[in-house]
Amino acid sequence: MTDTAVASRTPLTLLGTGAMGTALARVWLAAGHEVTVWNRTAARAEALAAEGARVAASAAEAVTANRLVIACLLDDTSVGEALDGISLAGRDLVNLTTGTPAEGRARAVWSEARGARFLDAGIMAVPPMIGAPGSGGYVFYSGSAELFEEHRDTLAVPAGTRYVGADPGFAALHDVALLSAMSGMFAGIAHAFALIRPEDIAPKDFAPLLVDWLTAMAPAAHQSAERLQSGDYTRGVVSNLAMQVAGNATLLRTAEEQQVSPELLTPYTELMERRLAQGHGDEDETGVVELLDTRRS
Amino acid sequence: MTDTAVASRTPLTLLGTGAMGTALARVWLAAGHEVTVWNRTAARAEALAAEGARVAASAAEAVTANRLVIACLLDDTSVGEALDGISLAGRDLVNLTTGTPAEGRARAVWSEARGARFLDAGIMAVPPMIGAPGSGGYVFYSGSAELFEEHRDTLAVPAGTRYVGADPGFAALHDVALLSAMSGMFAGIAHAFALIRPEDIAPKDFAPLLVDWLTAMAPAAHQSAERLQSGDYTRGVVSNLAMQVAGNATLLRTAEEQQVSPELLTPYTELMERRLAQGHGDEDETGVVELLDTRRS
Repeated sequence: MTDTAVASRTPLTLLGTGAMGTALARVWLAAGHEVTVWNRTAARAEALAAEGARVAASAAEAVTANRLVIACLLDDTSVGEALDGISLAGRDLVNLTTGTPAEGRARAVWSEARGARFLDAGIMAVPPMIGAPGSGGYVFYSGSAELFEEHRDTLAVPAGTRYVGADPGFAALHDVALLSAMSGMFAGIAHAFALIRPEDIAPKDFAPLLVDWLTAMAPAAHQSAERLQSGDYTRGVVSNLAMQVAGNATLLRTAEEQQVSPELLTPYTELMERRLAQGHGDEDETGVVELLDTRRS
Repeated sequence: MTDTAVASRTPLTLLGTGAMGTALARVWLAAGHEVTVWNRTAARAEALAAEGARVAASAAEAVTANRLVIACLLDDTSVGEALDGISLAGRDLVNLTTGTPAEGRARAVWSEARGARFLDAGIMAVPPMIGAPGSGGYVFYSGSAELFEEHRDTLAVPAGTRYVGADPGFAALHDVALLSAMSGMFAGIAHAFALIRPEDIAPKDFAPLLVDWLTAMAPAAHQSAERLQSGDYTRGVVSNLAMQVAGNATLLRTAEEQQVSPELLTPYTELMERRLAQGHGDEDETGVVELLDTRRS
């Protein structure tokens, strides 16, 4: 890397050097960025000094050091506390702190009132995936499109970027929606392993079947999207709700036989039964999405 | 196809011509097998006569016609009723009827007591996937290895085959375990769509992100298998249970903000919290599998 190349890298400030912040700082430093770090517990920031980071004595000093300020703190409250009373005029604040959509939106209003452009983010990765291009990890961004365009090369250094709109709540919303879906999948995986556990079946022999099946079935989400967008839950249905509810009985009876608690299966089953009882037996299961809307009840 | 090739195809009997049975019969007929069909409601079997099937007047006549007898009926009770009082001596009974592992095991004992070799099956496909090699559908088989080996070419005509062991309960167990995992994944997908529904986000724009993420995360099952097999739930944990439980709070708060019922998220969250409260904060989430075991409580 030439000195010119190094000089052209955008210097940046990183607030928060927990596991994720540290992973981010290392990758930016390795790519030749000047990185100023601050952490509430200073000792955790100082470890990065040996790798070339400048350690600021206060959050105010860190914010003053660079136009681009990236926050990767414990939670949204920590962001407010760390930046309390600090001028953000002319700053570009990128919030990589985990939070909800409403927190992202409120933080955008708060930042703009203090003179900063604001971009919220949702990190779809764990620290070991940072700086590992093949890992599949990436970061959702939403909020100021100008900020994103101006800094997209810098933001792309630690992980892939996906800008999902001007609404500063959308990054967190996309993040949480995907993590919630994953939580459901992991619940299903746990139940499946519990079912085979009393038997002479090696989990490592079973796992490839499970992974292949889930991978083959995940694209059913495209069909649900199609139905939600068209509002037509019945056209071309192969396995309708009436058949699925009947089929679920076999899943529940098997759980009982295998002495596995049905608690991870029953909520979805009950929603399908409710939708069926409402006269939607000829639909597929997409209508369950409507039952989750608490504004309707 | 030469006459010799046709002559070498194993003739078979198919009991049950519902949607799945009819799809199976068509594919075997198209491949040159002599197929004798029987259905309790005769009219549904007769539709296949035009495609070359022989329609038996009774289940007894159908069973007498061929050594290889395939049952694809409503449920296990229907199998018992259809074959009640009929000699199965020297027959190879392949049970494609949906059931539980215990039903598969009991039906094996029942069949062998009547002089038949028995193979249970679990169909990982819907009727349109039958006879469509690229569809990803296949059938689990378990029970008599001799029966499976002798008829594997015939069984492979409508869909891929996976023999999972001599225990006649294993085909149904594998089937139900994969379907249960899928049910969890679909629950997660429904929750994710419910979260974005109040917003200006097109489901069809969101679905590819969802499918990619679930596909990227499904292989986490390999790691769970590794841990279940080794009994070590802590080594190399990146995101431990304590961190995950903290992260789940963001998922639940977002559901509340978006006015989405948390009912599909809470059971898994509560299991993780229980495991954490038992002092397993340094593990990953695999230990939840143990909590599902009702023999422990």
